[in-house]
Amino acid sequence: MNMISPLPVAAPPADSVDIPAYSASGNECALFEKAWEKRLPLLLKGPTGSGKTRFVAHMAARLGLPLFTVACHDDLSAADLTGRHLLKGGETVWVDGPLTRAVREGGLCYLDEIVEARKDVAVVLHPLTDDRRILPLERTGELLSAPPSFMLAVSYNPGYQNLLKNLKPSTRQRFVSITFDFLPRDQEIVVVAQESGLDEGAVAPLVDLARRLRSLKGQDIEEGVSTRLIVYAASLVAAGLPRPEAVMAAIIEPLTDEPEVRAGLIEISRAALG
Amino acid sequence: MNMISPLPVAAPPADSVDIPAYSASGNECALFEKAWEKRLPLLLKGPTGSGKTRFVAHMAARLGLPLFTVACHDDLSAADLTGRHLLKGGETVWVDGPLTRAVREGGLCYLDEIVEARKDVAVVLHPLTDDRRILPLERTGELLSAPPSFMLAVSYNPGYQNLLKNLKPSTRQRFVSITFDFLPRDQEIVVVAQESGLDEGAVAPLVDLARRLRSLKGQDIEEGVSTRLIVYAASLVAAGLPRPEAVMAAIIEPLTDEPEVRAGLIEISRAALG
Amino acid sequence: MNMISPLPVAAPPADSVDIPAYSASGNECALFEKAWEKRLPLLLKGPTGSGKTRFVAHMAARLGLPLFTVACHDDLSAADLTGRHLLKGGETVWVDGPLTRAVREGGLCYLDEIVEARKDVAVVLHPLTDDRRILPLERTGELLSAPPSFMLAVSYNPGYQNLLKNLKPSTRQRFVSITFDFLPRDQEIVVVAQESGLDEGAVAPLVDLARRLRSLKGQDIEEGVSTRLIVYAASLVAAGLPRPEAVMAAIIEPLTDEPEVRAGLIEISRAALG
Amino acid sequence: MNMISPLPVAAPPADSVDIPAYSASGNECALFEKAWEKRLPLLLKGPTGSGKTRFVAHMAARLGLPLFTVACHDDLSAADLTGRHLLKGGETVWVDGPLTRAVREGGLCYLDEIVEARKDVAVVLHPLTDDRRILPLERTGELLSAPPSFMLAVSYNPGYQNLLKNLKPSTRQRFVSITFDFLPRDQEIVVVAQESGLDEGAVAPLVDLARRLRSLKGQDIEEGVSTRLIVYAASLVAAGLPRPEAVMAAIIEPLTDEPEVRAGLIEISRAALG
Amino acid sequence: MNMISPLPVAAPPADSVDIPAYSASGNECALFEKAWEKRLPLLLKGPTGSGKTRFVAHMAARLGLPLFTVACHDDLSAADLTGRHLLKGGETVWVDGPLTRAVREGGLCYLDEIVEARKDVAVVLHPLTDDRRILPLERTGELLSAPPSFMLAVSYNPGYQNLLKNLKPSTRQRFVSITFDFLPRDQEIVVVAQESGLDEGAVAPLVDLARRLRSLKGQDIEEGVSTRLIVYAASLVAAGLPRPEAVMAAIIEPLTDEPEVRAGLIEISRAALG
Amino acid sequence: MNMISPLPVAAPPADSVDIPAYSASGNECALFEKAWEKRLPLLLKGPTGSGKTRFVAHMAARLGLPLFTVACHDDLSAADLTGRHLLKGGETVWVDGPLTRAVREGGLCYLDEIVEARKDVAVVLHPLTDDRRILPLERTGELLSAPPSFMLAVSYNPGYQNLLKNLKPSTRQRFVSITFDFLPRDQEIVVVAQESGLDEGAVAPLVDLARRLRSLKGQDIEEGVSTRLIVYAASLVAAGLPRPEAVMAAIIEPLTDEPEVRAGLIEISRAALG
Repeated sequence: MNMISPLPVAAPPADSVDIPAYSASGNECALFEKAWEKRLPLLLKGPTGSGKTRFVAHMAARLGLPLFTVACHDDLSAADLTGRHLLKGGETVWVDGPLTRAVREGGLCYLDEIVEARKDVAVVLHPLTDDRRILPLERTGELLSAPPSFMLAVSYNPGYQNLLKNLKPSTRQRFVSITFDFLPRDQEIVVVAQESGLDEGAVAPLVDLARRLRSLKGQDIEEGVSTRLIVYAASLVAAGLPRPEAVMAAIIEPLTDEPEVRAGLIEISRAALG
Repeated sequence: MNMISPLPVAAPPADSVDIPAYSASGNECALFEKAWEKRLPLLLKGPTGSGKTRFVAHMAARLGLPLFTVACHDDLSAADLTGRHLLKGGETVWVDGPLTRAVREGGLCYLDEIVEARKDVAVVLHPLTDDRRILPLERTGELLSAPPSFMLAVSYNPGYQNLLKNLKPSTRQRFVSITFDFLPRDQEIVVVAQESGLDEGAVAPLVDLARRLRSLKGQDIEEGVSTRLIVYAASLVAAGLPRPEAVMAAIIEPLTDEPEVRAGLIEISRAALG
Repeated sequence: MNMISPLPVAAPPADSVDIPAYSASGNECALFEKAWEKRLPLLLKGPTGSGKTRFVAHMAARLGLPLFTVACHDDLSAADLTGRHLLKGGETVWVDGPLTRAVREGGLCYLDEIVEARKDVAVVLHPLTDDRRILPLERTGELLSAPPSFMLAVSYNPGYQNLLKNLKPSTRQRFVSITFDFLPRDQEIVVVAQESGLDEGAVAPLVDLARRLRSLKGQDIEEGVSTRLIVYAASLVAAGLPRPEAVMAAIIEPLTDEPEVRAGLIEISRAALG
Repeated sequence: MNMISPLPVAAPPADSVDIPAYSASGNECALFEKAWEKRLPLLLKGPTGSGKTRFVAHMAARLGLPLFTVACHDDLSAADLTGRHLLKGGETVWVDGPLTRAVREGGLCYLDEIVEARKDVAVVLHPLTDDRRILPLERTGELLSAPPSFMLAVSYNPGYQNLLKNLKPSTRQRFVSITFDFLPRDQEIVVVAQESGLDEGAVAPLVDLARRLRSLKGQDIEEGVSTRLIVYAASLVAAGLPRPEAVMAAIIEPLTDEPEVRAGLIEISRAALG
Repeated sequence: MNMISPLPVAAPPADSVDIPAYSASGNECALFEKAWEKRLPLLLKGPTGSGKTRFVAHMAARLGLPLFTVACHDDLSAADLTGRHLLKGGETVWVDGPLTRAVREGGLCYLDEIVEARKDVAVVLHPLTDDRRILPLERTGELLSAPPSFMLAVSYNPGYQNLLKNLKPSTRQRFVSITFDFLPRDQEIVVVAQESGLDEGAVAPLVDLARRLRSLKGQDIEEGVSTRLIVYAASLVAAGLPRPEAVMAAIIEPLTDEPEVRAGLIEISRAALG
Repeated sequence: MNMISPLPVAAPPADSVDIPAYSASGNECALFEKAWEKRLPLLLKGPTGSGKTRFVAHMAARLGLPLFTVACHDDLSAADLTGRHLLKGGETVWVDGPLTRAVREGGLCYLDEIVEARKDVAVVLHPLTDDRRILPLERTGELLSAPPSFMLAVSYNPGYQNLLKNLKPSTRQRFVSITFDFLPRDQEIVVVAQESGLDEGAVAPLVDLARRLRSLKGQDIEEGVSTRLIVYAASLVAAGLPRPEAVMAAIIEPLTDEPEVRAGLIEISRAALG
């Protein structure tokens, strides 16, 4: 059996079976819908664990769009997005990449941490993000026009930006943009309780501790505690692990390797949780 | 079905169905026509969003030339422009690149942000940009002579120039050159109104805000607000988003990630828009 | 005979025949089990020779999970983990990598020294380490959902961390974490005696010497003496080599190349062992 | 149809149909002929647009030699000059590169901007530039002896030389050398008038302006105005563009991107042309 | 005839026909035997020409082990050690590398100057150098268990160590280690006389000169005179070359290119040899 | 016709038809013969144009050895020396490189400017340059023993040495070494007269000028005038070019690009030649 399908077929969207829960903290849902309606590409900025990926999954499901998510990295090139020729039975066969599939199917393509990708990615994004909305596939000689329902969303974390890895203004000024931050306290407690199965009363002190640790960002720790880590801690407590051990393994250890910083965080944690 | 066409065929020009609207601000149309008439290559210099790509599309349509646009990048090599051999049925088949197609069909080849391309690109451009006007295809053994209607146009953004990525004088002195800048105020209002569907009275304060922000370039923001971003903001307003939210998402967020700079831009925006 | 199996078959787990001995020094076994039960990925931090690899082998056997261990390095890419197409009889055949095998078989995948791997590895880990628990195989078009028994564990040595090779917070905050350290004295004596066949009385002074040398870490020597080196020394003594020669070859020479430092270590060793 | 010719055939020389006009400014023609007669390789040094490429084309036609011109660049390797194996019908077929063709056909091989090429190019040049005059083709096992009519000419621009890109003395001392400079005033006026179709009276002030700007080289502008740029300006004037606009587009804009320098050049231009 | 053997066959060990002469200067033979008996890997440290390679060849022959020697270098990768797939008759065939052959045949694998190799080499060495003693061949899906007679030995020269090329502690602490130095005077005279055929009386002043020059290491010369160079000098004298010329060509010229240093060495040599 | 010979055949030595003229200036011929007799490898040190390549060709012819010369460069790898598999008719065929051919045929392999080659070249040289004299071909599984007549000679120019490109002592101490310099005056006059066809009386002032210019090395010019350049100048004079023009083109222009230095050299030349 050969696993390469000769031609891309309409596969069920990767993660659209249910509408993933999403707890909005501002006008982001309206902005996303307006941008989609006006066929404008969208840039999501914000720290790790502030819910960008979840938000995109939520909106894709809500608008009924097939979602194609790509986590960008140092070696991700334009061909990884558009597609490649593969050899089969002595013939070369074209296999669509996720961006091409999103264009063909009129779906939502989400490129997570776009600044990590190689520079040639800009080539395929530029004609898709101006009024032409086209995707030229030079290797196959095709020129795809994006259907009205197609949308491109990208994200990046401004905290990582450096001189080498940055969005050029010529790319950046092609996107409507929005900044994400952590959820407000009460909303975050509800979300963590839902995800972990721990009751809200037991979750609240964990959220409060995380919020206190977030205020240390830039001093001793590189990045604030993500909502995901609070969910991890609550899950371990729900599974029967003593709370101090759960906080140690799911919140403190992931934040730092420095013995002094770790001691300080344990101190703060003890003071906060009693 | 195999998507590789064995030999390049005369495809309809990529984007010449209609003549794209273009609002000239100087002698650029006459200069383009004279250069084309005298078979001289052209270099367009100017910031992001100053209308270079639109201008080229406009002129191509006006002169009835098929247009081949290539967005250059770090990994774009001469072979991406001239063509490659691909394997098909055990035979290697030559597939023309966009530059070769433009030469064969007597069209306009436009290389956007030429300084981003790899250095070997200069090899194929040099004999096309002196009195020989030839394109040697070493891999196929062909020597193409460009027909009179063929023209080469390239662009770059002097604001990005650095020591590593620069046009060598030996390349640069092969092009007639022109500098682009943003449109005058009244012309820009007309263009934004046409593109966004918002009336000129509502567009005017957005253009005025953009012009004010452009004067900050080099101080707090890297690049001035492009006309495209004003169109985005006007489109979102036209779609019903409150103006402050549209300005935030389409003008301020795309310009900066710095909280202090963002706060300053919001202040300017509030003062300007009331 | 051709050694490439066309399709991955259910191979016996690499190293799960017996349950490898492991001497716990904290709550690490309970934490591992809770994380596995709650389907959370795990990060093990600690110095060379502190027993991380042995601990993982122990837990895999205890939980009855097939174990797939990968020692990461500078050139390890995502494809090394997920799989590749190989040519066979004119056909391209997909061969699963160790991560894919672990997902298909519901096993434990252990990536040792994860920070050494190439950055594109993060791409395949991210969707496996959030609530989606999926592994998209873009090359085959498959989307694998990890079964409940699948677990991902990674390790790194904070002592090696540098600016270039570091876990990004966006990756790091996806793991429950735990710090390993050397065993307490009495436990280490028992382990070395078991492994080397030397009696505990003869092992004790070797362990004491190692513990003394570990306190020099960061001054003259880069890394503390691992338990493995004490086992080597004890093994050589058990094989009949004079103790000073065994200590020289198995403990002092592996720690340093500097003649002055070596002289100092010999001095300490003589003082300690008489 | 397959475009790869299995074996190189005697193609008509690339650019020898007519003898290209050339206006000598010194003993370069005699020197070229003597070097060719004595089978010595030749190095042409000089700035952009000083006529090196034209001179070589002229001499090739005058001596009746097929000319093979290669514009060197960062990625040009020895194999680009000597040839490669390509796959055809399951067989590998050797295809000669331009240097090999020049040797086989006893022609003139001209490597423009030799310092740009990769270092392995020196390997194939060394045995061709000493008394052996041989070209070993290791890939085919052939050892070609250059016929008496074969000649190698290379060029470079000393103004670009830097520490990384330099001719090693061991290569440089293999060439008879000559320095090129711009034409004397009256000769340059005649050449520009012939190339542009503008009469000599109208050309003279353009040449005088260019000569004045050349004296600024090294202060504000990187490289002097080439004769080619004067031809461009004269052509645009001949096509009906106002002289100030032609000078702006063909002389000033190609020289600089700095607003202050441009303003200075415009000032000089206005003073010179009235 | 095709030279690729489809499957590795038991070839006679590379260099084990006779037991190469080796003159021990310490406990290195006993240590090697004990390490082999206890299945511990061995690291040899020492300067150029101190006899490490010869020692390994000697021990391999003495223990009757087939020897697989690999000189490591910048581009040596794991695949060079484990093996590769090669294409044969349209089928891919696996060909074992030297490490794999050593494991399959229970021989001695010696990696000379291990720090020069690429980092992925550590991947294949780690599971072979702990208690697992396994070699996973991911490409073929095999998991080889090293037989009791298999041994791994590596070497490096601490004098070359630098920040980029260093043994990580996690690799280094996997080896029993031993430092090599030049032979004592009388032993070295015997060895040189045997190797060169020159009588010991004539060899002695050459050895004395070499020992005097070794004391200059780190001042004017980078590395001390190896025993091999003394053998060269003695061989040239035995062949009839005058002693000063032999010393010049075999000892002084190989040590330095600096005219002043050379003059100093000649002076020392004249004083020493009369 | 296919130019790849399936198996290497005994080709006539590349350049051994006649014994090339060589004018010895010291004991180099005796030293070469003794080294060859004792099977020792040889390193030739010296500046450009000091006759190293000619000397090797002379000795090869004198000893009746087939000569395999390789000019080393940045990209020359071990496989370029040993050989490669090429695809032919669906089969992979091994094609010997020049080093392998020299070993099989018992010839002389000469690697010019060895420090330019890639580091993996040392791998194939080490076992050929100690008492083993073997060449392992890992790709074919062969282990070649060099016949007594095989010899390896390498060269490098100490003037180019830098920190990155240097012979490691572990390689360098494997070679008997000799330093080359320019010929004495009277010898050089004879050689230039023979090579150029100009009579000795006319050659003498050219040699005297070159010797004067050599004394400037390190001050204004990077490398002294090679004998080859004097031959070039004499050849051009013999062809009828005026002596000042010949000296300008063949001696002064190849030495420098600096206008001031050139003016100084012209001054010296005029003073010397009248």
